[in-house]
Amino acid sequence: MREFELLRHIYRSNDRLDVAVRIPPGDDMGMIRFGGGDILAAVDQLVGGRHVNLETTSLELVGRKAITRSLSDIAAMAARPLCTLVAATLPPDFGEERAQELFESMRRTCERFECPLIGGDLAFHADPSHPLVCSVTVLAVPGHVPPILRSGAKPGDTLYVTGQLGGTMLEDGSGHHLTFDPRITEALMLTEMLGDRLHAMIDLSDGLGRDADHIAEASGVKIVIDAARLPRRGNASWEDAVRDGEDYELCFAATGSVPTEVRGVPITPVGEVLPGDADELPARLCVRDGDTLREAGEFGWQHEA
Amino acid sequence: MREFELLRHIYRSNDRLDVAVRIPPGDDMGMIRFGGGDILAAVDQLVGGRHVNLETTSLELVGRKAITRSLSDIAAMAARPLCTLVAATLPPDFGEERAQELFESMRRTCERFECPLIGGDLAFHADPSHPLVCSVTVLAVPGHVPPILRSGAKPGDTLYVTGQLGGTMLEDGSGHHLTFDPRITEALMLTEMLGDRLHAMIDLSDGLGRDADHIAEASGVKIVIDAARLPRRGNASWEDAVRDGEDYELCFAATGSVPTEVRGVPITPVGEVLPGDADELPARLCVRDGDTLREAGEFGWQHEA
Repeated sequence: MREFELLRHIYRSNDRLDVAVRIPPGDDMGMIRFGGGDILAAVDQLVGGRHVNLETTSLELVGRKAITRSLSDIAAMAARPLCTLVAATLPPDFGEERAQELFESMRRTCERFECPLIGGDLAFHADPSHPLVCSVTVLAVPGHVPPILRSGAKPGDTLYVTGQLGGTMLEDGSGHHLTFDPRITEALMLTEMLGDRLHAMIDLSDGLGRDADHIAEASGVKIVIDAARLPRRGNASWEDAVRDGEDYELCFAATGSVPTEVRGVPITPVGEVLPGDADELPARLCVRDGDTLREAGEFGWQHEA
Repeated sequence: MREFELLRHIYRSNDRLDVAVRIPPGDDMGMIRFGGGDILAAVDQLVGGRHVNLETTSLELVGRKAITRSLSDIAAMAARPLCTLVAATLPPDFGEERAQELFESMRRTCERFECPLIGGDLAFHADPSHPLVCSVTVLAVPGHVPPILRSGAKPGDTLYVTGQLGGTMLEDGSGHHLTFDPRITEALMLTEMLGDRLHAMIDLSDGLGRDADHIAEASGVKIVIDAARLPRRGNASWEDAVRDGEDYELCFAATGSVPTEVRGVPITPVGEVLPGDADELPARLCVRDGDTLREAGEFGWQHEA
């Protein structure tokens, strides 16, 4: 099932969304305007057995990832964290001490990234075999500039990524996906440095291939990624760097001069933005591998969960 | 495990919560102040097999209840709905059509109660036996008056409830808990009519016994409920009315004249608020049954899930 299609269909039929909704569903966060100002909101989930292996991962890292996954959406909009709400459903035999350890880790992570936990709900499954589900809602306010959407990429822009890509989840379940720092400060600094030359941004949760395609689709452009330029983590191949999810780096389209790093985090140009009718690209998102242009579909980027 | 104790412990250690947090965790909603104004937020969950029987309940009613449960928290604060975010984790074989039906029902319910769905996340369990979990975050803004907390009840107040209590979940899983309307408008009207004479309020999700005790504890008072005055649903006994959860009615403490109904919803005085050191009451929350005063503990009100 394709989450994106389903949610989009639902949101399209949301005909009562009125002027108060400044950023409708479909971007990394929604934004609503009310008397006092603009507020951004997003929700994300961590499911035991899907996003994290509870048998090999400490509760501290489970709690950390539950929060940082959602904070990464704030980075994607170049927004400022406001507060967090957590809902957790636990197996009935989870144990009070472990529940406390999990919530403590979430609370500490919220604190560390200045997005305090202001509410929560705790429920228990009927059956011990049912897995942990943590759902984390984050609220934010606009940063230096209005939130950076997915839809602003323009032909002629260069596509950049922060950090390294691929190989985030090792076979034993460990890896970068558990320990990454959401790029909140880096995103705010980029907007400060680039101003209105920073056109579109997303965080890499589903893999560069799929996430860059979200930018391409939302912006009505085509994007070509250069395989040789992809910054890769450890032993990751360029295919891994394109396909693996859970990098939680920023991917953005900008024009003009862009620094090579912010706060020690490398920034690498990895592709180009072309017009939506660029005939030289056989698909909306392509990867240039030497002289060959390969289409997105080849890599199985369709979201499966 | 006692959710309330656990969450409270966690929240107490939340030492970085600063002046921006206007209502800390522990009430029906948290409230945060930022540049633009005050915003309230709460999250609640619906777990298949716990809060709803998926085998006997239509997806329309499942989706409806997922939303109305959270909207009831907005009523409890006498606040105005702003927007909703939904996260759902589904069994992998749930089916696209059914997922759509569920989300459609949630969206329609959000619309009906003027709390538009602005964001969502959809995830899938690893195993078909794992149950549906819907986590619903609602945002709100203060209504006519500052939000009504649990902590404002004063000795001399009368305790009131709206509607009828008890027997909300029938043996086949159907009942009021699936079809109730959150008392948002009634709460706003009550604040308009009573002004600062409405001292404390909560919505009845865990049962009058336990929820009234939350008011008593937060307010530092004792409360005695009069068994004979309890408005009961159908065949519910007064014990059912005190013990059964999921009424989603309002329970509030007020002084002075209070109307007997709002919008056709009856309002019934069911108890009295006494000083915290009132020796005539053997416990913080008691029920007067004829000449007998019975303690809360007898009824097994301790939250089990």
